[in-house]
Amino acid sequence: MAGALGLGGLLPAAALAQTAPALPPPASVTLDALGLMQGFLPPPDKRVDLSNSGKYPQMRWTLQHLRELKPTQSIRRGNQPVSALTEATLPLGDMQFVSDKGQPITVNQWLDSTYTDALVVLHKGKVVFERYQNQMQPASPHLLFSVTKSFTGLMAAQLAHDGKLDPEALVTKYLPELASSAWGDMTVRQVMDMTGAVRFREVYTDPTSEVFGYSLASGLMERPPGYQGAANVYDFLKTLPKEGTHGEGFVYRTVHSEVLGWIVSRVTNRRWSDLMSEQLWQKMGMQEDAYVMVDSAGTPLQGAGLNATARDLARVGEMLRLGGRFNGQKIFDQAVVDDIRKGGDREKFKFGGIQAARPGYSYRNQWWALHNADGAYEAAGIHGQFIHVNPKAEMVVIKLSSHPMAAAAYTHALTLKAWAALADAVRDKP
Amino acid sequence: MAGALGLGGLLPAAALAQTAPALPPPASVTLDALGLMQGFLPPPDKRVDLSNSGKYPQMRWTLQHLRELKPTQSIRRGNQPVSALTEATLPLGDMQFVSDKGQPITVNQWLDSTYTDALVVLHKGKVVFERYQNQMQPASPHLLFSVTKSFTGLMAAQLAHDGKLDPEALVTKYLPELASSAWGDMTVRQVMDMTGAVRFREVYTDPTSEVFGYSLASGLMERPPGYQGAANVYDFLKTLPKEGTHGEGFVYRTVHSEVLGWIVSRVTNRRWSDLMSEQLWQKMGMQEDAYVMVDSAGTPLQGAGLNATARDLARVGEMLRLGGRFNGQKIFDQAVVDDIRKGGDREKFKFGGIQAARPGYSYRNQWWALHNADGAYEAAGIHGQFIHVNPKAEMVVIKLSSHPMAAAAYTHALTLKAWAALADAVRDKP
Repeated sequence: MAGALGLGGLLPAAALAQTAPALPPPASVTLDALGLMQGFLPPPDKRVDLSNSGKYPQMRWTLQHLRELKPTQSIRRGNQPVSALTEATLPLGDMQFVSDKGQPITVNQWLDSTYTDALVVLHKGKVVFERYQNQMQPASPHLLFSVTKSFTGLMAAQLAHDGKLDPEALVTKYLPELASSAWGDMTVRQVMDMTGAVRFREVYTDPTSEVFGYSLASGLMERPPGYQGAANVYDFLKTLPKEGTHGEGFVYRTVHSEVLGWIVSRVTNRRWSDLMSEQLWQKMGMQEDAYVMVDSAGTPLQGAGLNATARDLARVGEMLRLGGRFNGQKIFDQAVVDDIRKGGDREKFKFGGIQAARPGYSYRNQWWALHNADGAYEAAGIHGQFIHVNPKAEMVVIKLSSHPMAAAAYTHALTLKAWAALADAVRDKP
Repeated sequence: MAGALGLGGLLPAAALAQTAPALPPPASVTLDALGLMQGFLPPPDKRVDLSNSGKYPQMRWTLQHLRELKPTQSIRRGNQPVSALTEATLPLGDMQFVSDKGQPITVNQWLDSTYTDALVVLHKGKVVFERYQNQMQPASPHLLFSVTKSFTGLMAAQLAHDGKLDPEALVTKYLPELASSAWGDMTVRQVMDMTGAVRFREVYTDPTSEVFGYSLASGLMERPPGYQGAANVYDFLKTLPKEGTHGEGFVYRTVHSEVLGWIVSRVTNRRWSDLMSEQLWQKMGMQEDAYVMVDSAGTPLQGAGLNATARDLARVGEMLRLGGRFNGQKIFDQAVVDDIRKGGDREKFKFGGIQAARPGYSYRNQWWALHNADGAYEAAGIHGQFIHVNPKAEMVVIKLSSHPMAAAAYTHALTLKAWAALADAVRDKP
């Protein structure tokens, strides 16, 4: 298990998603009860540092404080006024629904049982329910793990729409550095939809898994003394060989998102963090700066490193629900949003084994499409981060969590029930 | 020299200030010419990372990008509107004055020769001159080194004014942890004014200097393999013995500022970064979040780690010039500002040898008083950072630099001439 290897929560992958949970997660314990990082100095056994920040329960602190442990780049909101989010509160906390186990459960119980730090529900753009727990504050940026990928995918899809990036071109058109790697004969489209065949195993029970190489190269995992591996993510990518047939099927691989972010920066000649600021944070009237972890070469972790507040993510979800417009301006083209909303190839999705936790889903431009009756789609990060957009119910849900297990299998079936219950609660309301 | 030991610019001390320059500094080279951290990936010889970030010329990049290398805490500006700074430009760049060597020099030449990244001059609160160089942007936070101390001193002085901190009490009243150290029989006032006698040598030519212990404990300097020293700043402070007589004279010691920051947090039960946000950044309508580097226990470097933009620092200078009020509210009490403006004991100041670069100065509450005819006072950081307040000329100057040498002796005599020339240029203007 991740925890046994001392990696804990800092791995940005859909780890174990394909396997059913073998062990129950540890009991939920809150930061107030833990008393981590309280006092001056905090007592030694209450400190969170690089030796324990990925372990549970310290990880519950880390996910709200990554910047205090790691090098980061800011994603500036600029000096524009904050775009107002009006409130129209509905009493959803005690609303009951039927769990994936067939048992009655309330929204609040769902939040507690899935180690939730923040939840924001928008209906028609208004905040109908909002909750912060576990010391999370409205102004706290939270580590988003693979939700990061979906921002990289959005920016890439817009570049493709603008004709600045050719999805059918080979990756090497933009990144000749990857000629000798798995990406040497892969198309950009295969990167965007994660159907490129690269040997990159995210199996935490196997220390030979390439995910450890990624974690060490990126700085997510502390390097042992005498470490001789890749010094940064891009140098690590060059080492990964092809394994299989490109385009055959979807396999979830964080390294594809790093390649896609590299392409975006190469095409625009801009840092990912600056693009995020210029294209989203400055235009949308965000309330707080966001930030992204960087590796030792200053490259943002474009597949795993974004941190933002719940309400700012709600603004992103609402922008998508509105077809790419927000705060009085175009953020992305309607066609870009429509392409994501429609989703990807559901047959190819079955290839990688992710479907055990996400039956019927597909993956397109680094977004998950649910293919349910409401046409919902979402960005998702391990340990329970979500931007969930439900067009038909006119609903956006942001959920930020610090679940101890790096596996959707522990919670996703229940969370799907919660999405449906919340949609039914707001549906057809004025 | 600092550079020879690989420390370069990351030491927050008045190093070498007491000795005359032995060697000329390296020729000024700008980031545009260097091409550091450009491209995706930057070429290996163009990267700035923990192995070279303190060396010149990489240090010129580091001082504008510390957060991309180190763990930090944000100092939030909040969601208030930015307090406007109106402009009334004066053509000061080509204005000539007589240097400390008796030679004519223009303001622009002074800026270039002292490796300046940003200069902002306010007269009566209006921006009369502003320059950004070396890739510095108006939104770029710059590492301020010992300017940090002056913020710690302001907060401590306000607490004393409010009766929440007794300057005449022993340090151990607030920090019993320091009973066995030099601070065991030292008063808070002696900490505030740096007249406490502690063995802490800041001599960069001597590897046994305690400044190296501070740099390793704080994380400013990379730890060698097998490092067994203090894991954080506060644990390091406990190891420092008394040497001499408390109160006898001023000796500039960064560790006093760390003790003072610790006292401030103990008294308020708040993190330094949160106090900075609540007392200054949120109230003053700052334009950007500031940030502070933290050690591995999450303690801000309260003597060296602050990063902020030039204009936000100009707002601080103007607030002081106005007696503690800014943006329509009280930030500090007039009496607190007056106490700093009046300065400290000029006889005790001569004790420590700093006076070679700063003749006639004194030090009070972590601020430098010039005792010139204009009643000027300033915060100063090594490598050339300043908040310079000239009450009589109604002028505030912010200078942010990345001078290769950690020594005021290289530049301060010239900078004093520049202060005077700028004051004369704006004096009696409408």
